[in-house]
Amino acid sequence: MAKTNAGRFFEDYAVGDVIKHAVPRTVSGGERALYHALYPARHALYSSDEFARASGLPKSPIDDLAAFHVVFGKTVPDVSLNAVANLGYAEGRWLKPVYEGDTLRSESEVIGVKQNSNGKSGVVYVRTCGLNQNDEVVMEYVRWVMVRKGNLDAPAPETVLPELNKVIPADQLVVPEGLDFTGYDFDLAGESHRLGDYEIGETIDHVDGVTIEEAEHMMATRLWQNTAKVHFDNTARPDGTRLIYGGHVISMARALSFNGLANAQMIVGLNGGAHANPCLSGTTVRAWSEVLDKAETSAPGVGAIRLRLVATKGGAPFDLKGEDGKYLPDVLLDLDYWALMPL
Amino acid sequence: MAKTNAGRFFEDYAVGDVIKHAVPRTVSGGERALYHALYPARHALYSSDEFARASGLPKSPIDDLAAFHVVFGKTVPDVSLNAVANLGYAEGRWLKPVYEGDTLRSESEVIGVKQNSNGKSGVVYVRTCGLNQNDEVVMEYVRWVMVRKGNLDAPAPETVLPELNKVIPADQLVVPEGLDFTGYDFDLAGESHRLGDYEIGETIDHVDGVTIEEAEHMMATRLWQNTAKVHFDNTARPDGTRLIYGGHVISMARALSFNGLANAQMIVGLNGGAHANPCLSGTTVRAWSEVLDKAETSAPGVGAIRLRLVATKGGAPFDLKGEDGKYLPDVLLDLDYWALMPL
Amino acid sequence: MAKTNAGRFFEDYAVGDVIKHAVPRTVSGGERALYHALYPARHALYSSDEFARASGLPKSPIDDLAAFHVVFGKTVPDVSLNAVANLGYAEGRWLKPVYEGDTLRSESEVIGVKQNSNGKSGVVYVRTCGLNQNDEVVMEYVRWVMVRKGNLDAPAPETVLPELNKVIPADQLVVPEGLDFTGYDFDLAGESHRLGDYEIGETIDHVDGVTIEEAEHMMATRLWQNTAKVHFDNTARPDGTRLIYGGHVISMARALSFNGLANAQMIVGLNGGAHANPCLSGTTVRAWSEVLDKAETSAPGVGAIRLRLVATKGGAPFDLKGEDGKYLPDVLLDLDYWALMPL
Repeated sequence: MAKTNAGRFFEDYAVGDVIKHAVPRTVSGGERALYHALYPARHALYSSDEFARASGLPKSPIDDLAAFHVVFGKTVPDVSLNAVANLGYAEGRWLKPVYEGDTLRSESEVIGVKQNSNGKSGVVYVRTCGLNQNDEVVMEYVRWVMVRKGNLDAPAPETVLPELNKVIPADQLVVPEGLDFTGYDFDLAGESHRLGDYEIGETIDHVDGVTIEEAEHMMATRLWQNTAKVHFDNTARPDGTRLIYGGHVISMARALSFNGLANAQMIVGLNGGAHANPCLSGTTVRAWSEVLDKAETSAPGVGAIRLRLVATKGGAPFDLKGEDGKYLPDVLLDLDYWALMPL
Repeated sequence: MAKTNAGRFFEDYAVGDVIKHAVPRTVSGGERALYHALYPARHALYSSDEFARASGLPKSPIDDLAAFHVVFGKTVPDVSLNAVANLGYAEGRWLKPVYEGDTLRSESEVIGVKQNSNGKSGVVYVRTCGLNQNDEVVMEYVRWVMVRKGNLDAPAPETVLPELNKVIPADQLVVPEGLDFTGYDFDLAGESHRLGDYEIGETIDHVDGVTIEEAEHMMATRLWQNTAKVHFDNTARPDGTRLIYGGHVISMARALSFNGLANAQMIVGLNGGAHANPCLSGTTVRAWSEVLDKAETSAPGVGAIRLRLVATKGGAPFDLKGEDGKYLPDVLLDLDYWALMPL
Repeated sequence: MAKTNAGRFFEDYAVGDVIKHAVPRTVSGGERALYHALYPARHALYSSDEFARASGLPKSPIDDLAAFHVVFGKTVPDVSLNAVANLGYAEGRWLKPVYEGDTLRSESEVIGVKQNSNGKSGVVYVRTCGLNQNDEVVMEYVRWVMVRKGNLDAPAPETVLPELNKVIPADQLVVPEGLDFTGYDFDLAGESHRLGDYEIGETIDHVDGVTIEEAEHMMATRLWQNTAKVHFDNTARPDGTRLIYGGHVISMARALSFNGLANAQMIVGLNGGAHANPCLSGTTVRAWSEVLDKAETSAPGVGAIRLRLVATKGGAPFDLKGEDGKYLPDVLLDLDYWALMPL
């Protein structure tokens, strides 16, 4: 009897299956400090208990993206160990802040399958929930991946394609209970710009860059208990390089976006995202943003801003795709998200 | 008066001496998070307070090997600063889990000495205890090292060789108070295999590999306050390499063994171990295990499994020694330990 | 409207201005563990809650230099983003220990300006305070930097040069409330030398060395939320190197000084300091100290020792300056500080 996990193949997923992912995780100040050591994260709400309390929260939560990474990491052994490609994200929502002492686990429901015409692989759609120790859903998102077939003779399943919102409507965003930006301290937050100061269509070059080292992305990816071999084992890819976890690039770009978006405090929605090109150690990551939309919320003083966040490894800021409609080779990430910002 | 510590030489140890090692250490969630960032550690009992509580413990302890490293690190300035070689371990037992907020210190008793026939060095045996803030012994082990003589004219001491168990009898293993695996959640733990699913003699290739960077092993070794120069100073060895702390390889191999031994939750005994070959930065570490024995314990649902854990830097899994009886050059570690596993 | 922070130029500072720096920070056991992973820090008071309690404190504080780095990091976007050089420190005092759970913020008052004769830059003097969540000043220091002018046509301000103590008089040092070294455990602290064992003029070679990696200094510098581009972005300097944050060298040297100064427990005064030469990844840092002065304090059993701490990347210990009075090329740091030591 083989004791190790070989991962699931395309034929092992059926619509309606619920996968209870392994290894729950209690987070502490250690994860928070490591997040600040690994990324140039400076958003005040995630740095200071006092700032968080002045905003109506009990204390400073774990960074929203750290919560995402913890939830995501647990799904890797069940969802993407045999994945050929990570194709997309949709309908990501953060529903409750995660605090030190919380214990997170993950569950995924298979919501779509479509075998590829070559018969060798297929696309699997899962809706993943992160739950805390009280069985409350702290976040959820849909992800689809291309997975190899293990048995090429397995029959093709009936195609099921989920209907997914391209953008989460602003009225479906969940603002954390108690959040109140009416007494927001812009000096302490680092910038004076409020929601009204941003215009739809406006682009911001975040200016700063960070050169990534192998030790850093591996420490981050291990911390989230992501087990994909390509991130850690320099014999796993033919060219001997280690592929940087796409989430590491997301966190790096988001942290860099502080410079120009210091008041885009909490991420509450993930509309979509593409890892446009692979990222390797030695890359200097930069970021730019585009304001896609703005909205009000029911919480006092709290607005929502929809942003495109692009990470690059070179090229001119604001360049995204070529004439062929494909991402330019220097683009690493194209992310579409909602964040909360003082009105 | 020289103010710095030159370390002890062979003639400075006498059987019966008790050395109170310096620099007590309070552990926190920071050490736990760093352990998870440095190693792909996924055993659920050390990851989740909830899982630990469901197993009868008050919360999730610090990883057993982290506790070992903290205890071990304190002994380096007194035991192995002038060591030529780390020869072996025996009779290691974990007696009480270590929790966040506990403060550890170490004491060693010299239990054996034997001058080498060349008159230039000798072997010193110490029994080391790690104690917490309540003076309870949390772990103990015997270690022997070859140490240079500082004064070649110092007379050879009377040889004393301690009698050491080659294997700790299962009935001398200490199961943490309250531990109960009768409600064990195999889904959350990550694998379905219980003690009865393993056969004595069975071997498991843990499949995954991790390539080690200088920054990682140095951060780990410093965290345990291990001061041996060869790990940190690229001028300390003639070839300019930094030798990776053997304990880093132990933790890496143990973490890799999750894949196939996810339910070997708590380490309670260290029967022996050899650092077969040096490990350097850039090495991709892999691991395989062999089931050496199985036993019951008095705790509900809790069995014990005795495992050989081998770390390698290449070669075929399950190859260990050549025809000459010596470790093959790709073998880094050969460890013999007892772990607790659900029946 | 430009959204990103371009930093201040020389003409943007006026004597009397008070700058409220952004991004307050709550510290936890995570910062403490990372400090111990990044530096070979072993001073017992910062490692053990029990040792700290036996010395009259409520628990182990965050390392004094970690507190300094947190306070300092916040000032970078406002003080040194356009700095040409970091010229000096003076009158640094630690006024209250910082504990896990404390939230720090920083404020600086401009206390001096002097335009350079070339008309292209000037020197700015600021007195910076770190404050905790109760608005208590936990530390303060003066720093002066050379800053470029943004508008070369801006008129030169009236020169104001602050009067600064070259050395903080011992009676102005603040000993933490309750500190008592009368029951000091020299065994646990790691060395037997008390204040009376050191002589003014005595020099100590701290013997050990640490080779620094890019990942380490970047993690440290990010942890303190220092945003200076030259530390992170390998395109920021013409030669493609990343400059190591001077504070990383300070912490490394101070940690290395444990070997010979294990009982110089708490830093309470910073008289001055010079970053003599830049430090790059791959450098093996060593340290030596010179006893400059000794004093008593009003706290039981507590004396003060004034030390020169020199970090080097080679050369003979105790060599500092050439015949031309300039620092030798292998000298990285020359720091003058007061620490508390048992009498």
